[in-house]
Amino acid sequence: MIKVGIIGATGYAGQELVRLLLQHRETEIVWYGSRSYVDEKFSSVFGNVFQIVEDICKSDDLHELSRQADVIFTATPQGYLAGVLDDEILNNCKVIDLSADYRIKDVAVYEKWYGIEHKSPQYIKEAVYGLCEINREQIKGARLIANPGCYPTCSTLAIYPLAKAGLIDMSTLIIDAKSGTSGAGRGAKIPNLYCEVNENIKAYGVSTHRHTPEIEEQLGYAAGKPVTLNFTPHLIPMNRGILITAYATYREGTTPEQIRRAYEEAYREEYFVRVLDEGVCPETKWVEGSNFVDVNVKVDERTGRAIMMGAMDNITKGAAGQAVQNMNLMFGLEESEGLRLIPMVP
Amino acid sequence: MIKVGIIGATGYAGQELVRLLLQHRETEIVWYGSRSYVDEKFSSVFGNVFQIVEDICKSDDLHELSRQADVIFTATPQGYLAGVLDDEILNNCKVIDLSADYRIKDVAVYEKWYGIEHKSPQYIKEAVYGLCEINREQIKGARLIANPGCYPTCSTLAIYPLAKAGLIDMSTLIIDAKSGTSGAGRGAKIPNLYCEVNENIKAYGVSTHRHTPEIEEQLGYAAGKPVTLNFTPHLIPMNRGILITAYATYREGTTPEQIRRAYEEAYREEYFVRVLDEGVCPETKWVEGSNFVDVNVKVDERTGRAIMMGAMDNITKGAAGQAVQNMNLMFGLEESEGLRLIPMVP
Amino acid sequence: MIKVGIIGATGYAGQELVRLLLQHRETEIVWYGSRSYVDEKFSSVFGNVFQIVEDICKSDDLHELSRQADVIFTATPQGYLAGVLDDEILNNCKVIDLSADYRIKDVAVYEKWYGIEHKSPQYIKEAVYGLCEINREQIKGARLIANPGCYPTCSTLAIYPLAKAGLIDMSTLIIDAKSGTSGAGRGAKIPNLYCEVNENIKAYGVSTHRHTPEIEEQLGYAAGKPVTLNFTPHLIPMNRGILITAYATYREGTTPEQIRRAYEEAYREEYFVRVLDEGVCPETKWVEGSNFVDVNVKVDERTGRAIMMGAMDNITKGAAGQAVQNMNLMFGLEESEGLRLIPMVP
Amino acid sequence: MIKVGIIGATGYAGQELVRLLLQHRETEIVWYGSRSYVDEKFSSVFGNVFQIVEDICKSDDLHELSRQADVIFTATPQGYLAGVLDDEILNNCKVIDLSADYRIKDVAVYEKWYGIEHKSPQYIKEAVYGLCEINREQIKGARLIANPGCYPTCSTLAIYPLAKAGLIDMSTLIIDAKSGTSGAGRGAKIPNLYCEVNENIKAYGVSTHRHTPEIEEQLGYAAGKPVTLNFTPHLIPMNRGILITAYATYREGTTPEQIRRAYEEAYREEYFVRVLDEGVCPETKWVEGSNFVDVNVKVDERTGRAIMMGAMDNITKGAAGQAVQNMNLMFGLEESEGLRLIPMVP
Repeated sequence: MIKVGIIGATGYAGQELVRLLLQHRETEIVWYGSRSYVDEKFSSVFGNVFQIVEDICKSDDLHELSRQADVIFTATPQGYLAGVLDDEILNNCKVIDLSADYRIKDVAVYEKWYGIEHKSPQYIKEAVYGLCEINREQIKGARLIANPGCYPTCSTLAIYPLAKAGLIDMSTLIIDAKSGTSGAGRGAKIPNLYCEVNENIKAYGVSTHRHTPEIEEQLGYAAGKPVTLNFTPHLIPMNRGILITAYATYREGTTPEQIRRAYEEAYREEYFVRVLDEGVCPETKWVEGSNFVDVNVKVDERTGRAIMMGAMDNITKGAAGQAVQNMNLMFGLEESEGLRLIPMVP
Repeated sequence: MIKVGIIGATGYAGQELVRLLLQHRETEIVWYGSRSYVDEKFSSVFGNVFQIVEDICKSDDLHELSRQADVIFTATPQGYLAGVLDDEILNNCKVIDLSADYRIKDVAVYEKWYGIEHKSPQYIKEAVYGLCEINREQIKGARLIANPGCYPTCSTLAIYPLAKAGLIDMSTLIIDAKSGTSGAGRGAKIPNLYCEVNENIKAYGVSTHRHTPEIEEQLGYAAGKPVTLNFTPHLIPMNRGILITAYATYREGTTPEQIRRAYEEAYREEYFVRVLDEGVCPETKWVEGSNFVDVNVKVDERTGRAIMMGAMDNITKGAAGQAVQNMNLMFGLEESEGLRLIPMVP
Repeated sequence: MIKVGIIGATGYAGQELVRLLLQHRETEIVWYGSRSYVDEKFSSVFGNVFQIVEDICKSDDLHELSRQADVIFTATPQGYLAGVLDDEILNNCKVIDLSADYRIKDVAVYEKWYGIEHKSPQYIKEAVYGLCEINREQIKGARLIANPGCYPTCSTLAIYPLAKAGLIDMSTLIIDAKSGTSGAGRGAKIPNLYCEVNENIKAYGVSTHRHTPEIEEQLGYAAGKPVTLNFTPHLIPMNRGILITAYATYREGTTPEQIRRAYEEAYREEYFVRVLDEGVCPETKWVEGSNFVDVNVKVDERTGRAIMMGAMDNITKGAAGQAVQNMNLMFGLEESEGLRLIPMVP
Repeated sequence: MIKVGIIGATGYAGQELVRLLLQHRETEIVWYGSRSYVDEKFSSVFGNVFQIVEDICKSDDLHELSRQADVIFTATPQGYLAGVLDDEILNNCKVIDLSADYRIKDVAVYEKWYGIEHKSPQYIKEAVYGLCEINREQIKGARLIANPGCYPTCSTLAIYPLAKAGLIDMSTLIIDAKSGTSGAGRGAKIPNLYCEVNENIKAYGVSTHRHTPEIEEQLGYAAGKPVTLNFTPHLIPMNRGILITAYATYREGTTPEQIRRAYEEAYREEYFVRVLDEGVCPETKWVEGSNFVDVNVKVDERTGRAIMMGAMDNITKGAAGQAVQNMNLMFGLEESEGLRLIPMVP
């Protein structure tokens, strides 16, 4: 059994890790880290695991944890891991970081968009960006994983086939994203109150959202050159789910068949990325609670644009599920172990 | 592998059977019956199983199905199974009926509350009421299971300990129930449209709901004498979940400790019924997508009443999950096989 | 024009007062009091009144305000007004208090249920309980109004006709209440986050909710003797609305006609209380955003109980709307001025 | 008093007309037309107006109605009015059509996108497109108004200032729209059931939605040349509200100040269009139940694009409210009569 520690276990991503790992055949959770609930029963915070988890919440002593665990998941605020990580921890165990600390290779870009100083830039190069479908082989040998952000996961996977195949003009790329409210975290803030979110929709972080450079970097790798794009997230009155609608002008002479084929070829071997039948639009409900990303593309010959769409559960494939997928790869397990959950409808 | 057929597979309970059985290690679904979608791919109706289920929907030929399957689940409207069932089917395979056709032992009561004639009353006596926690032993040997209704499951389990122990005056029993909208089914009806249900709450079927006699019958067995009670369901703007709040005057001299002990003793050995810690109120979110029923009781010494509470997922333990639990018992499998799903939060 | 000051203007009840008073022909808001937003534009907090309200938020200097206003609404936490109120204020202007400070005549009961010491009990006797349909005449002459709580308003009005007519056994009375989340206020608390409330339902404050003694007191006046009852509120995933379902055994020999007639007679002259047609269950959607209370009763001859139902908007008739109704009475205006808003559907 | 008839009074737009007209000082509804509910009380369908509207629903005899009414609102399916309208009706009274029948000047475009034959193209030229902020003067003299679609209203008003000022490259224009579910109408269809919409989001009608040519035509007038654009609507789990996020590359050399000024100048005199403060994103909650459209623009100098945003209530300004605004103009009333409703929060 792989011994697992979770830091930030009482956030939405952290508790989703608990849900997934409890249904995983090869893992045992040895540390429920939660600064806010130290010494309280985890199940008194998340009643769903009442009589299933008897553990109490512990502090975030990463060094001690690194001696007890084979792998640590950090579902923590930006800057936390960068401020603590050192060689001792990395020598003791593997680390999968759900924050943004090691996602962006250019530390100046990180510091500009996140507005904080990076405390351990020496680990950025080593860290592997854990988008399994793209970086599978490097993930297998990594000891530090930068688990991708929710929007970047869905955006990158929805656009990747056309970026990689060079079928679209990357300078025309616009991503309009919609997310359920769990993406805003479990902090007690007025804008996230039920009555503020319910029966409402708004854009936020327009042209300034911190996932923008992460998406640009990843799509830049696919396109083979730097990418600058518009990314606009919206807050949706639902718990889980991200939907991406992306627009780009396709290269002159490109046929709808070529575009469709790019998707089919890119994801033919992928279990978690489902290319929907032609004409079917992804819906977040069809992936809820699962590690699937449903993608599709519509070719609008009238305007010369491809409309790329992706749906995903933001706390599963967009956070905890992908983290487990990374762990599976790192420990030589079947990639889908613990993740073959059927999406829940309705 | 147990060969399973589902009639009514494209209703909410039917597709939940699909979700659960796909995650069950000992079953294979051989028949996706759906009158409305014959010859269409099941996954074109329920996109959550795209690339997982390739089957197309079939008719509801129960006789043919009984030759192909080891067990049939009928998630069908009231009266359907009663109109079709015969010895041939029951000799060929086991039947678990999610409708109300065989739940009520007194056919006159059934016909009065449901307003339809019972077409095969000869099977009523044989049918076992599939409330596993109460009738476990009879279920094991049954060939026809009357799978309990959603409200009756949650109501009976929430009240059973006090009814059985004789600690409450059954003539004072009042059940106020609240259900998510999936309980209303997947029929295209104006009152179930999003805009009619969202931001709204109402009672319905006040003093006339058809689950009333079913609850009265089951609690009557527990109490050892006929029970007449008030049952009022309410429609709640959420997809899944039932919450029961029940009120009864407790016998004079009864102590809070006796009342609490009755719950603990009744469910000490039960995996799926969780007696919450003192003072904790059940929440439907803590059981969502799972087969758990969370129960608790509050003793109000000021009024001399016990307030009994239960929370459950109406399409899992309230329908499909309990049906699978029954199947497990009937086929000698571990009772929780395929049902150890961790409730999904948020 | 009546000069109005609001203390607590940025809470849900406070901003509803703003909405209603802006549509009132005889009032002018001169003071938007909000401790948390002093010096910020009110419309930067509540964008609905952008370009309509240009005022900035002020402190809660009640004495200064009392010199500028004809009437003050205090939509403040329990204990606030009791700690500040004095003769100077009451001599300067009228006060309508939306908190519970002056609702309960027996100060010991208040202090026990609210767990705080009452700082100005000398005003309790003078304060008029502002349930307009019951206490209309006293309200007209009052200078201090204790505006009723949301649950008590709906509960009392739904039960009052039978309590007053003596047709039910008050010792059997049970009130099961359901409320939208705005009733929990606009404080930043984890249990009120969108993801905690959405897709969830739970009871809370079972047998201990502070509105219990208020309901008991009011129904006690109607019945002519002390009343002890069970009151159980539930939190519902919707913004606005309260639904009351109440149960009581009716006096032997009472006919359904008598029961129905009690409602019709009690509310024949009332604009804001609508007795629905026989068999129609109240729905919160039908009263949303309005000052109406829809009530009805179902007689269950099988169990000998009357099931009384009421639906209301908790922040309109349950708070701000009733406060304005009180103000109208106190200033000799038409009682429905500013309150003839048609409920909004869907 | 202006005598008003409504055809399609029991749809969501129709009943919103009822809500608005009941709060209008100069109108009297003389005809509640509803084919599905003929001879039923209107208030038995929409309980919000119980005891307020005593009328029963009538058929859709437009000729008879035209003799009784000064103005007819048709909130009917596409093709209905075109199949019935004749000179007799238009000579008798004014007609405000909430369907798309007379919105598009090129009948071939209409027939192509709507897939139906236009039965009375002779009235297309006469019909005035009722976007009041743009066509105010023509509306005043019209006898037939083509009331704009919900998406076109919000899209056009959000983009108009930059299109008119020539500050953006219209060939780069992309509109990503999100709508509450009332926009899907009140028909009993499975995709609009509560459990299908709740906790879900999807795009629909991608590159084929019928509001596309309407938007293109209107923005073409503003730009002074034909416009081709992408329009993608999404279904959101909320009752009311439309949010538009539109993207276009601005002309080289354009400054953020020019862009902002274009909005301020375009709407300086408009009561119903509110240009939000810089940096504030429109939210549908801030306009709910009102006739306001909140717009704003963000200039992204990194990508050279303007992100234009608009929020509106789809059944008020997007349908019934704008229809009443048109009526006010046509009858020489104050344009905002009956429409100065404060948006409802929360």
